[in-house]
Amino acid sequence: MKITILTIFPEMFDGFLNTSIIKKARLKNLVDIQVVDFRSYTSDKHNRVDDYPFGGGSGMVLMCQPLLDCLKDVKTSKSHTILMNPSGQQFNQSKAHNLKKEDDIILICGHYEGYDARISNYVDEELSIGDYILTGGELASMVITDAIVRLVDGVIAEGSTVEETFENDLLEYPQYTKPVVYDGLEVPEVLLSGHHENIRKYRLYESLKKTYMNRKDLLERHQFTTEEQQMLEKIKEELENGKD
Amino acid sequence: MKITILTIFPEMFDGFLNTSIIKKARLKNLVDIQVVDFRSYTSDKHNRVDDYPFGGGSGMVLMCQPLLDCLKDVKTSKSHTILMNPSGQQFNQSKAHNLKKEDDIILICGHYEGYDARISNYVDEELSIGDYILTGGELASMVITDAIVRLVDGVIAEGSTVEETFENDLLEYPQYTKPVVYDGLEVPEVLLSGHHENIRKYRLYESLKKTYMNRKDLLERHQFTTEEQQMLEKIKEELENGKD
Repeated sequence: MKITILTIFPEMFDGFLNTSIIKKARLKNLVDIQVVDFRSYTSDKHNRVDDYPFGGGSGMVLMCQPLLDCLKDVKTSKSHTILMNPSGQQFNQSKAHNLKKEDDIILICGHYEGYDARISNYVDEELSIGDYILTGGELASMVITDAIVRLVDGVIAEGSTVEETFENDLLEYPQYTKPVVYDGLEVPEVLLSGHHENIRKYRLYESLKKTYMNRKDLLERHQFTTEEQQMLEKIKEELENGKD
Repeated sequence: MKITILTIFPEMFDGFLNTSIIKKARLKNLVDIQVVDFRSYTSDKHNRVDDYPFGGGSGMVLMCQPLLDCLKDVKTSKSHTILMNPSGQQFNQSKAHNLKKEDDIILICGHYEGYDARISNYVDEELSIGDYILTGGELASMVITDAIVRLVDGVIAEGSTVEETFENDLLEYPQYTKPVVYDGLEVPEVLLSGHHENIRKYRLYESLKKTYMNRKDLLERHQFTTEEQQMLEKIKEELENGKD
């Protein structure tokens, strides 16, 4: 897989590309990540990439020319081009799985108040990583790159991406490691019992409970088994009684 | 404002801290950002910070000791401590505005499969930046830092944070800059008219239309004016007719 990131702040990516999982994936040639500075494509004699918005308003708007000339240069017939945009569709785990299937992804980062809207005509989609405003698209492009790359075969140990939060619309159950008692706080007894079926039930119950408490919206699209349905009733009762 | 980030990958933050708005805010002393490596607090002779989960399962779990000893060391009575966690509450623009009011924020990044759940007892809240899984909390902590810092007085020009996406539950209207014609694509005539009232109406209409098309969920919590309500009816008609 190849990922090309277009930005005017290439130096911002140094730490990201050379740390942890992304570094390992690059060294193993599982992914090729290129960062391209699109300011070098500007035809403006002052090296500018932005200008004032037509119709007035505060802030500067990214111009078509430098960015789109750069895009033409790096794009191939296989490229899937994504514009980082807070007004775009929401990026999520199922989107990460879809993008994992692409061979060649181009991520465009903008800065300033926004883009010349005509840029939208030259991209395949526009994605937002969440309902907040960032200085630019650089962090968004790192988030999307990270979420995709860790799903690529061989990047992390098989099996460890399966039971995670969002993979089945449930938040992950609580995990515990040594010591058994820390600062007076104990690990739940069932986890030390070695009884696999009880551990499975405990984890499913806690997973449902956490999702019900923190993210009811995820449960709306979850496909419930009969066991899960019964557990959820119990959780509602438990929380109801806890309030008294 | 002081932001302290606890991580085992401090080198990942170099590019982020030394680029663009964050760099300027730091140089102007508007924000003090410290990155602390909590691996240096481990009492494990092999320098480990994680161990196997009780009850079985793949992956490793972050231990209480190194992280919490580090937290005790950096925490003050004013600290607001946030754990980066995909199972946490969702971070958004209104949360960014609330956090901007804090003097001293601690952001905790974990790696591996997760945290020992007892760590939750020592933090004020747990936040997620979106419904996707990242290698670790590092990018999430940068996203939250960036979103907060750009709201701090003096960091970016006054006024330019007001009309943005999410600030009023609407996506931003399209922007255009020079040239008037690019690759055969023209800037909407109204923006060149100099007629302020028409420009305002055009932008409001496009803003509502984009939000209706991309993010109906945002409209559910939007407080509509009569003008907006009428525009939305027109947008629905326009889109309905466009389908024929």
